[in-house]
Amino acid sequence: MTSAAGDLWAVIPAGGAGTRLWPISSPAEPKFLHDLTGSGRSLLQATADRLGPLVGERMLLVTGAAHREAVAAQLPGLPEGGLLVEPSPRDSMAAIGLAAAVLERRAPDAVLGSFAADHVIADPESFRACVRAAERIARDGWLVTIGITPTEPATGFGYLRLGAALDEHPGAWRVERFAEKPSPEAAADFCARGDLWNAGMFVVRPGVLLDLLAERDPGFAAALRRIAAEPERIGREWDALPRISIDHAVAEPAADEGRVAVVPGEFGWRDVGDFASLADLLGGADRADGSRVAVLGDKTLVHAVDASGLVVPASGRVVAVVGLDDVVVVDTADALLVTTRARAQDVKRVAELGVRDQTAPGSGESM
Amino acid sequence: MTSAAGDLWAVIPAGGAGTRLWPISSPAEPKFLHDLTGSGRSLLQATADRLGPLVGERMLLVTGAAHREAVAAQLPGLPEGGLLVEPSPRDSMAAIGLAAAVLERRAPDAVLGSFAADHVIADPESFRACVRAAERIARDGWLVTIGITPTEPATGFGYLRLGAALDEHPGAWRVERFAEKPSPEAAADFCARGDLWNAGMFVVRPGVLLDLLAERDPGFAAALRRIAAEPERIGREWDALPRISIDHAVAEPAADEGRVAVVPGEFGWRDVGDFASLADLLGGADRADGSRVAVLGDKTLVHAVDASGLVVPASGRVVAVVGLDDVVVVDTADALLVTTRARAQDVKRVAELGVRDQTAPGSGESM
Repeated sequence: MTSAAGDLWAVIPAGGAGTRLWPISSPAEPKFLHDLTGSGRSLLQATADRLGPLVGERMLLVTGAAHREAVAAQLPGLPEGGLLVEPSPRDSMAAIGLAAAVLERRAPDAVLGSFAADHVIADPESFRACVRAAERIARDGWLVTIGITPTEPATGFGYLRLGAALDEHPGAWRVERFAEKPSPEAAADFCARGDLWNAGMFVVRPGVLLDLLAERDPGFAAALRRIAAEPERIGREWDALPRISIDHAVAEPAADEGRVAVVPGEFGWRDVGDFASLADLLGGADRADGSRVAVLGDKTLVHAVDASGLVVPASGRVVAVVGLDDVVVVDTADALLVTTRARAQDVKRVAELGVRDQTAPGSGESM
Repeated sequence: MTSAAGDLWAVIPAGGAGTRLWPISSPAEPKFLHDLTGSGRSLLQATADRLGPLVGERMLLVTGAAHREAVAAQLPGLPEGGLLVEPSPRDSMAAIGLAAAVLERRAPDAVLGSFAADHVIADPESFRACVRAAERIARDGWLVTIGITPTEPATGFGYLRLGAALDEHPGAWRVERFAEKPSPEAAADFCARGDLWNAGMFVVRPGVLLDLLAERDPGFAAALRRIAAEPERIGREWDALPRISIDHAVAEPAADEGRVAVVPGEFGWRDVGDFASLADLLGGADRADGSRVAVLGDKTLVHAVDASGLVVPASGRVVAVVGLDDVVVVDTADALLVTTRARAQDVKRVAELGVRDQTAPGSGESM
């Protein structure tokens, strides 16, 4: 552990089925376990890599029982006690709250930063600078979020309405309120006002987070603290916990009371939610034949003629695409998906309904 | 052998790479080895099945060395001497001419009918009636072809220009000339005149065929007769034979001399040349979700949402298609093709150029 980073801890909730990225991801093998950037590292590994310089081994992974082994295998350096296993999916408040309760006992003066295991960040150094700034504010008792400066009026994210600047922390603002995913008109309005995307990143002292939860739902906070004190209680207590996101349980009400601060970030954040955003992330390489096809994987396997879009040749077989624009072809060992960028959102429908019997069951619905 | 069929022999040249049906077919595993109709029988097997009632065991298969084992495995009932193997591809005149020369010695009074191994025929009984009619005319020394009554002014086939009716054989006509694949205007004109598609089916006495060849190329005919007399000569003589089709070598010049007769047929003939014609052949099944996707193979593997076209799930994996019309998805163990019906002809380009290094070599270019 580096002393320079003080006692900042990273909490990484690793959940979510990622059905809109089927057949790459599935409940049995969610998005965070996959390399979606071609970097050679899964999104989970890249998240840990990114946080390493800030926290060293002070890292808590929270994942479902179904993914315990896969997570441990991908992060062999995770220290003893660094993996918290949820018996069942209970959304993000339970997952992050459990980590907070464990930390509250293990490192009472800690600040925790919670970051999803499946986001992509282009500039890790800039990201870390934001986290360090958020940490300083969190020490003063704030619930701090890192908001993303929008690059376009996206309708797929929630927004953070900026309030007054914090006098004691230049470059940070109060969050006036959390806004749900907006209409196109509202998104344009948010962007014009300088509001930020909500990337679900929270930096806060464990006790502050649990106390905020206790103000709304004392039983929930108490249960988390009981489990942290006596881990064997998790089997009895966990399934009774509310299924609620940390946004709804804590962040939105706290913002209404003026107790949430935000540090804006511009570090190339991406939530790769579907194949359209994956295609955007990977870009389209200019090819000798004039095609523009983004490839995730071995480019030598892909033969594109008069085609554009995204090809994922993940089964190792040759993939030939002739005469289709904005097509999405995902070729895995288990299944093949052919669709378009415009229909990327509908993949969820196929993954959930059409091919349910073909995928192994899993408990990856949490968070 | 049934005596009712007399001494009609079937000759089946089994060649052609079928690169426009890649990755189902390839030089290593040509079209005729595959079941393209969902019948459970390959095109080759269906061809033999169709001819069986006419010729019993009087069948000569001619194929390349690379396909000898596959052909023998698919037709275990083929009698001793029923498989002639070409050392190298030499187009259809050499293949059919070799069979004629062998038959000339083996069954001097025979009539042979030559039929490609990779055509589809909907009404085999009607087909056989045409062959029997052609056989009667061939006994009189004619080179007889079976022409297909067009169902549309196709530009993908050659045409047979009808001449005068044969007085001695009602229902048969002289062929005035063979016409190459026409322009759309010429095709419409042909159809209006009652001309027929050239399906490459010839019925003729072996000696008549070889004598017609000898009139144009005595050396070619003599070489074929030498090989038939002393089969071990094939290694020395074969590679020097001209690469020429039976149409150019014999049928076109003979037609110019008024020596070719035609029997029109209407038996649902199809030359499944590319995925567009395969999709036509298979039709589109109405599905509960309103999609119209033709499936060659296990329909339970295909999940189509707002899609139409053709899916071939030949690898055994799930194939999901969302939001694409007239798409062609061919999923084999070796490679995956995604294209459109409109671009079906361009598959040849990918098969020949793009993925040459991925497919096993073969000598299936003959005929």
